[in-house]
Amino acid sequence: MSTTQKPRLEVCLSPALLHLYDTTNTVVVIIDIFRATSTITAVLHNGAKCVIPVASVAECISLGNEIPGSITAGERDGKVADGLQYGNSPLEYPRGFIEDKVLVLTTTNGTRLLHMVKDSAAIVIGSFLNLQAICDYLVSEGKNVLLGCSSWKDRFNMEDTLFAGAVVSKVGDKFDINCDSARAAKMLYEVSTGENLLEFLKDSSHYRRLSGFGLIDDMKYCVTPDLHPIVPILQGAEIVAFK
Amino acid sequence: MSTTQKPRLEVCLSPALLHLYDTTNTVVVIIDIFRATSTITAVLHNGAKCVIPVASVAECISLGNEIPGSITAGERDGKVADGLQYGNSPLEYPRGFIEDKVLVLTTTNGTRLLHMVKDSAAIVIGSFLNLQAICDYLVSEGKNVLLGCSSWKDRFNMEDTLFAGAVVSKVGDKFDINCDSARAAKMLYEVSTGENLLEFLKDSSHYRRLSGFGLIDDMKYCVTPDLHPIVPILQGAEIVAFK
Repeated sequence: MSTTQKPRLEVCLSPALLHLYDTTNTVVVIIDIFRATSTITAVLHNGAKCVIPVASVAECISLGNEIPGSITAGERDGKVADGLQYGNSPLEYPRGFIEDKVLVLTTTNGTRLLHMVKDSAAIVIGSFLNLQAICDYLVSEGKNVLLGCSSWKDRFNMEDTLFAGAVVSKVGDKFDINCDSARAAKMLYEVSTGENLLEFLKDSSHYRRLSGFGLIDDMKYCVTPDLHPIVPILQGAEIVAFK
Repeated sequence: MSTTQKPRLEVCLSPALLHLYDTTNTVVVIIDIFRATSTITAVLHNGAKCVIPVASVAECISLGNEIPGSITAGERDGKVADGLQYGNSPLEYPRGFIEDKVLVLTTTNGTRLLHMVKDSAAIVIGSFLNLQAICDYLVSEGKNVLLGCSSWKDRFNMEDTLFAGAVVSKVGDKFDINCDSARAAKMLYEVSTGENLLEFLKDSSHYRRLSGFGLIDDMKYCVTPDLHPIVPILQGAEIVAFK
């Protein structure tokens, strides 16, 4: 890439659209605000050794048995899945509990997208909890970027899109953007910033679903910017804090 | 459906997401602002007998040969496709030329989505040129609605989304909406209305592409509301004006 040309930034609104994007030599940011990528960020900032994302509950149980002292976690329909020990709430993992441990995690959407990406330059984990850290990382890497929304079972969702928009709003000028999804995400984020982000999300599908499970405190936590300023990065099968 | 329950309204942002939506007993609005659905609307309002949408240039040529006095139309890369007679510009089809004729049309995105929809209650054609007519039709039918954006080769695009947002903004209160795409489209449309719609679209991917082909007048025409207040509807293989 010549010094005069900016790297490209694009936004993928759903895993079902991932095939439209070239991820070669690209940093892919996995976004699942409610709640996988928020939880991964919190867990690593609170001192966990690593998070191992897995696709299924069965795989989670089996890997948990193999790794001594590991913790298995995952939910189905807002409850800890049968056979696992903990859920998918960032509030469940304070430092006193998770420090130096390995978390084996399965989730509905976030881990799925993460496993779909092939041949990228890097896969990192984005959430409002590490928004500025992700922005700084993307700018310092200077590579092409794909912001990948995990969505809800392939359907566009508001909160992942707003996070993508936050990144575009903060550091979009450092990139070449010819992507209507990126522009739309930025506009939506900029519309939202006049008010409390959770208030803005109150009529979204995911808010309705999770508030039905009594998880409003979780969501409030997940939209708080920069509580956990680290960059979780995939290394082999493990997600660790980037150093 | 009980009298107290409103019909559902959803927005599909790309043909690659169509499988996520149930189109049974649903009115599907096909949206391809630049320019298939704008052209179809103009052509029928200007008195064409019908428009026959086909998937390929070869099919267009072959059907044109079968139907005496028909006109074949379609573009590839902004130029009339080899073997066809006319392009995909609404400005090419004034009443004096198209009245009582049959237009056989192939386009990159719009006709493709139209052929993908199965088992709907009806398939109608939406554009800014018939925005209010589509809104009135949807309300008077009182059925579930899917607003289907044709996008650009499956990628989210701004202008189709803005049209979907215009419909949600105008008649969304008559429907039950639990769809983040619909909410996002509405917000984007409402952000855009402070200014000229074409101005708002100036940094969109499609504007860049079509202005490169010298088609700014086409785009200006396509974002003009309510010039052609009819509802084009698919009947068998033909699109006709709904009466």
